[in-house]
Amino acid sequence: MLSSSRSDHLSPAAERLRYILGEDDDMPNPTLFTEMDTLQQDGDELEWKESARWVKFEEKVEDGGERWSKPHVSTLSLHSLFELRTCLQTGTVVLDLEGYSLPQIVDEIIERQIDEGMLSPDLREKISFVLLRKHRHQTKKPIHRSLADMGKASGGGARHAHSRSMNDIADTLSTDQLRNKFMKKIPRDAEASNVLVGEVDFLDKPFVAFVRLAQATTLGGLTEVPVPTRFLFILLGPTGKAKSYNQIGRAIATLMVDDLFSDVAYKARDREDLIAGIDEFLDEVIVLPPGEWDPKIRIEPPKKVPTADKRKSVYSLNELGQPNGTAGGSGGHAEDEEMPVAHELGEELAHTGRFCGGLFLDIKRKLPWFPSDFYEGFHIQSISAVLFIYLGCITNAITFGGLLGDATDNYQGVMESFLGTALSGTVFCMFSGQPLIILSSTGPILIFEKLLFEFSKNNGIDYMELRLWIGIHSCIQCFLLVATDASYIIKYMTRFTEEGFSSLISFIFISDAIKKMVSTHAHRHTLNYYVTAYKCECLAPDPSESILGSIYHYNLDWSQLSKKECVKYGGSLVGNTCKYVPDLALMSFILFFGTYSMTVSLKKFKFSRYFPTKLRKLISDFSIFMAIMTFVGLDRLIGLKTPKLIVPTEFKPTRPDRGWIVLPFGKNPWWVYLASFVPALLVTILIFMDQQISAVIVNRKENKLRKGCGYHLDLFWVGVLMAVCSFLGLPWYVAATVISIAHIDSLKMESESSAPGEQPQFLGVREQRLTGILVFVLTGVSIFLAPILQFIPMPVLYGVFLYMGVASLSGIQFWERIKLYMMPSKYQPDFPFLRHVPLRRVHLFTLVQIICLTVLWVLKSTVLAILFPVMILGLLVVRKMLDMVFSQHDLAWIDDILPGKDKKDKKKKGDKDDTKKKDKKKGRADDSKDKVRNVKIYCHQLADLEQKKPC
Amino acid sequence: MLSSSRSDHLSPAAERLRYILGEDDDMPNPTLFTEMDTLQQDGDELEWKESARWVKFEEKVEDGGERWSKPHVSTLSLHSLFELRTCLQTGTVVLDLEGYSLPQIVDEIIERQIDEGMLSPDLREKISFVLLRKHRHQTKKPIHRSLADMGKASGGGARHAHSRSMNDIADTLSTDQLRNKFMKKIPRDAEASNVLVGEVDFLDKPFVAFVRLAQATTLGGLTEVPVPTRFLFILLGPTGKAKSYNQIGRAIATLMVDDLFSDVAYKARDREDLIAGIDEFLDEVIVLPPGEWDPKIRIEPPKKVPTADKRKSVYSLNELGQPNGTAGGSGGHAEDEEMPVAHELGEELAHTGRFCGGLFLDIKRKLPWFPSDFYEGFHIQSISAVLFIYLGCITNAITFGGLLGDATDNYQGVMESFLGTALSGTVFCMFSGQPLIILSSTGPILIFEKLLFEFSKNNGIDYMELRLWIGIHSCIQCFLLVATDASYIIKYMTRFTEEGFSSLISFIFISDAIKKMVSTHAHRHTLNYYVTAYKCECLAPDPSESILGSIYHYNLDWSQLSKKECVKYGGSLVGNTCKYVPDLALMSFILFFGTYSMTVSLKKFKFSRYFPTKLRKLISDFSIFMAIMTFVGLDRLIGLKTPKLIVPTEFKPTRPDRGWIVLPFGKNPWWVYLASFVPALLVTILIFMDQQISAVIVNRKENKLRKGCGYHLDLFWVGVLMAVCSFLGLPWYVAATVISIAHIDSLKMESESSAPGEQPQFLGVREQRLTGILVFVLTGVSIFLAPILQFIPMPVLYGVFLYMGVASLSGIQFWERIKLYMMPSKYQPDFPFLRHVPLRRVHLFTLVQIICLTVLWVLKSTVLAILFPVMILGLLVVRKMLDMVFSQHDLAWIDDILPGKDKKDKKKKGDKDDTKKKDKKKGRADDSKDKVRNVKIYCHQLADLEQKKPC
Repeated sequence: MLSSSRSDHLSPAAERLRYILGEDDDMPNPTLFTEMDTLQQDGDELEWKESARWVKFEEKVEDGGERWSKPHVSTLSLHSLFELRTCLQTGTVVLDLEGYSLPQIVDEIIERQIDEGMLSPDLREKISFVLLRKHRHQTKKPIHRSLADMGKASGGGARHAHSRSMNDIADTLSTDQLRNKFMKKIPRDAEASNVLVGEVDFLDKPFVAFVRLAQATTLGGLTEVPVPTRFLFILLGPTGKAKSYNQIGRAIATLMVDDLFSDVAYKARDREDLIAGIDEFLDEVIVLPPGEWDPKIRIEPPKKVPTADKRKSVYSLNELGQPNGTAGGSGGHAEDEEMPVAHELGEELAHTGRFCGGLFLDIKRKLPWFPSDFYEGFHIQSISAVLFIYLGCITNAITFGGLLGDATDNYQGVMESFLGTALSGTVFCMFSGQPLIILSSTGPILIFEKLLFEFSKNNGIDYMELRLWIGIHSCIQCFLLVATDASYIIKYMTRFTEEGFSSLISFIFISDAIKKMVSTHAHRHTLNYYVTAYKCECLAPDPSESILGSIYHYNLDWSQLSKKECVKYGGSLVGNTCKYVPDLALMSFILFFGTYSMTVSLKKFKFSRYFPTKLRKLISDFSIFMAIMTFVGLDRLIGLKTPKLIVPTEFKPTRPDRGWIVLPFGKNPWWVYLASFVPALLVTILIFMDQQISAVIVNRKENKLRKGCGYHLDLFWVGVLMAVCSFLGLPWYVAATVISIAHIDSLKMESESSAPGEQPQFLGVREQRLTGILVFVLTGVSIFLAPILQFIPMPVLYGVFLYMGVASLSGIQFWERIKLYMMPSKYQPDFPFLRHVPLRRVHLFTLVQIICLTVLWVLKSTVLAILFPVMILGLLVVRKMLDMVFSQHDLAWIDDILPGKDKKDKKKKGDKDDTKKKDKKKGRADDSKDKVRNVKIYCHQLADLEQKKPC
Repeated sequence: MLSSSRSDHLSPAAERLRYILGEDDDMPNPTLFTEMDTLQQDGDELEWKESARWVKFEEKVEDGGERWSKPHVSTLSLHSLFELRTCLQTGTVVLDLEGYSLPQIVDEIIERQIDEGMLSPDLREKISFVLLRKHRHQTKKPIHRSLADMGKASGGGARHAHSRSMNDIADTLSTDQLRNKFMKKIPRDAEASNVLVGEVDFLDKPFVAFVRLAQATTLGGLTEVPVPTRFLFILLGPTGKAKSYNQIGRAIATLMVDDLFSDVAYKARDREDLIAGIDEFLDEVIVLPPGEWDPKIRIEPPKKVPTADKRKSVYSLNELGQPNGTAGGSGGHAEDEEMPVAHELGEELAHTGRFCGGLFLDIKRKLPWFPSDFYEGFHIQSISAVLFIYLGCITNAITFGGLLGDATDNYQGVMESFLGTALSGTVFCMFSGQPLIILSSTGPILIFEKLLFEFSKNNGIDYMELRLWIGIHSCIQCFLLVATDASYIIKYMTRFTEEGFSSLISFIFISDAIKKMVSTHAHRHTLNYYVTAYKCECLAPDPSESILGSIYHYNLDWSQLSKKECVKYGGSLVGNTCKYVPDLALMSFILFFGTYSMTVSLKKFKFSRYFPTKLRKLISDFSIFMAIMTFVGLDRLIGLKTPKLIVPTEFKPTRPDRGWIVLPFGKNPWWVYLASFVPALLVTILIFMDQQISAVIVNRKENKLRKGCGYHLDLFWVGVLMAVCSFLGLPWYVAATVISIAHIDSLKMESESSAPGEQPQFLGVREQRLTGILVFVLTGVSIFLAPILQFIPMPVLYGVFLYMGVASLSGIQFWERIKLYMMPSKYQPDFPFLRHVPLRRVHLFTLVQIICLTVLWVLKSTVLAILFPVMILGLLVVRKMLDMVFSQHDLAWIDDILPGKDKKDKKKKGDKDDTKKKDKKKGRADDSKDKVRNVKIYCHQLADLEQKKPC
């Protein structure tokens, strides 16, 4: 590689690999399950004892523990690999042997060795005897059986007999094998490779054989699971070297589960192909210096492993395939990392230029999914999602209903809030482009209604009629935005804007939850001050009114009764403190923080070590439900009068003087119908921004949505519902970020990890309309659920609110970056952007975000809150200006590149990049060629120093 | 290795290493600091840019981050190591060059290459020019400067100029170098090795040089820190291979910081020695399979790394040195692990057989440390320890004082408790064998006093006089135990007994803390029931009594006043609820849990990523103090009448009818003086067990105490103090486990880690008498500190109690084992005992412990509590019986082996073990011989496949 005369022809080994791997093969090879058995003396009996197994990572039978170790990365020694290489060079290699039973296979191998003069014929019987001993497998027993065993077998010697199953190799599959639960960790089509190593006293040089069977065959009790064997590696050697044989066994086993080597093993034509495979493996190997690592440490499987395809592509016939140049370790390859992919919102937001072009595309995209949107909803997870989101929704409906009632003099109250939520939500989830979005009342709308009501009252204008006209105008404006594909502006929304928006909304959730808790109990501090208020007396009932009561209880000392008795006997409680319940504040705070922290800890429970995975997942999925149930139960148990959820029970408008339909004409002068266009514009901007930002957050690429989204379709339906709600005098609804995120989170799917030690992968979200529809139907039905819902204390619901706010904050990069301020740089986590962007630039970016957020928060608290949507537009402007302060390189890492900039910069950089890329590609191709040559060249030179020594 | 004809002569490489490393050298080589600089084009200028550095682990300059990566294990590729080997074979190797400046050294190297015909003379100038470019170092800037830079330099290009210092190689040391804070991470005597790699356009084959200077010399701005350079590795090559050069540079840098290779580098006589060193390194290397590990992951430095001595010993002249046979990875070496070391309590508990033999030995052992016991106490950590333990002590004194007062009709009250604690503690800490032990009242003593007082009252015996005689008898009995070295029985106390005892004590602490919190507030539930009680009125003062008051406030409506006003104007509050403060329960619980959880989280803060290490350590050390201050402050701020600490303010016995001295005769009949021998026996057993178990726990090997302990001396002083306290009518004191553990924990010392990435080591405990003495002097003085102490709310102190209980539970293996019950085996942590003992045996052992603990807990709650010490003796019996159920092998892992068993078993196993050990040793020696030969042998065969290709 360093030599000046670079020749481009390949080494023989690389050519071999290229030849056998280069053929494009449609059929991938089966996964290999590898089991290593070692020869053991148990009393007088020789037996093969399972000592380790590999699906992808290594699991070892602990020496005394009678248990499987955790799956770990196989750490090998370099010389065990070299020894293995020698073994394959000198031993018997039989490829595509027609084998049907172990004795026959063993016979064939021994015969060959004798034929080749490698084995003296008088050892035939002995070797055959050893190889056909029984196999003892480490199988897991059910808990009740192992508990029963707890007391047994105090001695050391015989204890293995109890916990391991014994399998005769001549037998057919035993029940232990068939019942082995480990089978479900192995793919269906898997084949086994068996490694047998051991030391015997009658050999003076090793007996080595590598066998590939023509057909995978079940060889009796050879393997712990009922998987047919394809490969067999046997190493028997003279005594005294057991540890070394073990290491060689581990080396071949590790090779067999290596994607690339197993491919070579399946396709090898001869011994040399196998050795070329080992050489390739050696070349890709990662080396840890002995002084910096303790080999006793078992390395946990990494979260992600480079795919084998990359490695294989080096040997594909396509010369410019992307080879894996990363074997060189952590230090030298960061330069190779690609820039993060540019911000892409996909074709959903392309500006079609046609009338309603985007809307039609949305419908065309979503229609094929419509049936699956229903049947895919049938899953246990949906139940927990529905419960969770339902509770969030009714809490929201009640809170905002109450606030709206205050703001509009009960023209819109809790009843309207429930009804509107149910109606809008159901329609939206049924027909929208992104049914995972949850509609809800939001703060800005509330403030707008408040201002509007005050304005109408002061100017003698009928509020409901004015509101109806604003709704109509706004609906038309929404249609206009839909028709002109105006949603494409969302493309300019980068991480900067999203994070600002969603942090703000999360803050509002958190502060609302806490504010409500405090305000519920704040009034009682006054109790401390005025003595007169601090009294409660029981007055006897007026005898004239309740004759019956007075007969029985005439002689009672009314002042000695408890409150309950007083009421029971018909007395009346007089005094301000009669309603006061001691310790209510304590109870409320226990309920509030209890619900919150129980939810948090149960959610985290998924990552604990306790209980089996499935149970933990269930607990984590139902954490909110369980927390609510627990604290509702606690509340019932203690029996204090905590403030409870109040659900309207009768189906009628909150204000008796209004009906269910608002009429458009008759109460206001004609010009109001036209002038309402102006406030409608504000509402439209508000709705547009609120809706679309939430949609962008929901449609994030991280969520891996398959079914696409529909910004235009969403906006269309929001517009329609605006008009409908205005006619019915119900509140207006728009996408609610926090609840929508919670909805997505509760529907996340993860792969059931297959190989032990492999990380479960996030597969995507259960995209369907069912959960949303159910949530809102339930919300509607809640009007009739009052008897059940009334047991829920409000502090519990505020706890749920708090959780939703905090949970939606987590995972936002902005917060990770804020934490960086307080960390000395050496303790900072290894974020990709920190590897590429100077820390002070990161800090500056974060600082800008903090300032923006502070400004937004301050404005939100003033009357300017109505300009909220305009402020979000302001964020876009700030982001645009950041282009002047930060380089596109830095922004690509900590934010995204704006669409326009993206193209321009690409153009500008284009020429340079292109040539650079070409260079890189060439370099890589060279690398790959060199690589397969390297080991051999330099090993060659190692050899100079030594006299040759045959194996 | 596998070959049948094993010859025992060594390979030339191994012989070389044995020759140069074998000499026993008293002077260890200096630590090497390695810096790697790469050649970079900055505008038109060429410069050397620092790209990585090594003290022990690798730190890399992030590509765009202008920052150091976290220290990580260097992961290398195998072929970069082979390439390096070639480089050393073909390049210039100059050992012991007399160099005084970089230009001169560079000249010498170039000259040699030209002489040897490796370099054409016309390249002389060009190479010299490149090698003498300036060096740009990555130095850390103070925060204020980097914050100021935040806004600067938006462009990508020029930004490096701001954050890196530029050093001319011709200059003397620059201020940047001298001021570099990194210097403190490098040992004083360190020398530097500089690696320079880069690509240049004028070369067509690589220019390689390895230089060792005869004397370490400071070469101007070559190194980022003012460390003299000893080694220099230069690699310049043709363009297009920068990545490969980088990898080679990392390989040599990693080798240079390898303990064994650096030794070789210092002692090498020629090129071949260096190459032998690489071969040795290759042989020890740990290999990760490419399919199971992502090379991009930076591996965090492990907690412990095998020592280099082990590796070196292979090459020492002593053939049977213990070589490191562990390079083979995690799987194969567990068998090698030694059994845990047997339970050893050291010579302190040897049975001398002489009168007072143990006591004299104790004094002899402790006397030399006496002066250092004082001056070693002067440390900032002591302050926090004193504060912490002081608060624990007075809380204990008050609690037990109150309880004793109740139990003995105030014959011993809070005053006596304070005085007794101060007196006993000071004396004990001053003269005892183990001054880290804290004396305190304990539960069993309290129960004994209670029963004794009732007995005397019922039988007309004078309590104080009886108690005095019991004290005298008990003191004499203690002296007897001391004189006969009876403490040696403690040897039979294993982990089983200790864990049982300390868990029980911790439970008592936790349950007491919670019980006290609940009982303080329980009475108020009744308030809810009776109306009359639920009233508070303000009555105007009687005009005749307070004439002055009535003049001013005649016209007041007394019922409209607040409570405060009512009192202010001379009114009187009438009614049961006047004393009731609303929200007191809430406040108390906030104080209680707040103190507890703030302490826990501040303690944990040490392990967080925020703030510099020193600040975090300070916060963690003072966590309890800060938590107390915070919540005392909060309590003041809110101003609710929470129950406060009440400290006696006058120096007099609690009961006015008793004096400070109890007279021995006169009040009881004469036979009582003799009969008190029997109850004294119980007290003696109680004191003996309580004292010595706590002492064993404090003296645990894990605590790494240097100054030894003194069980006999301790018991002697406890006996003396018994008698003194009895004469003064003060409570009896004995070692308190929980507070003593807290004392030790707050005095733990850790090494300041030197190399980046190295774990700090637990060094031991600050053993001294000062903290203890101060604590008790302060306790005594507390009688005068009442004005300050009275601000501390009791719930805060209960929170401290809770923390002490929970903290002393953590780290007990028993609890880890209980958790195992709930973990599926695949999630269980990798405890050593789990690798060796079957899980069901572990579970059985834990179950026995749980049962014992439950029985103890139940007995403790009954009147049998007085038999507490006898119950602990019962634990010893149970443990003895476990020998029949468990094998000694299992017990060695999960418990300890009893002294008797130990010897017997060792004897029994002895013969077998001995031969086994011999075999092992022989095997190892063989291994070591083979090892150095292996790589070469097998690489040799690799070479067969290839045509030789010169570098």
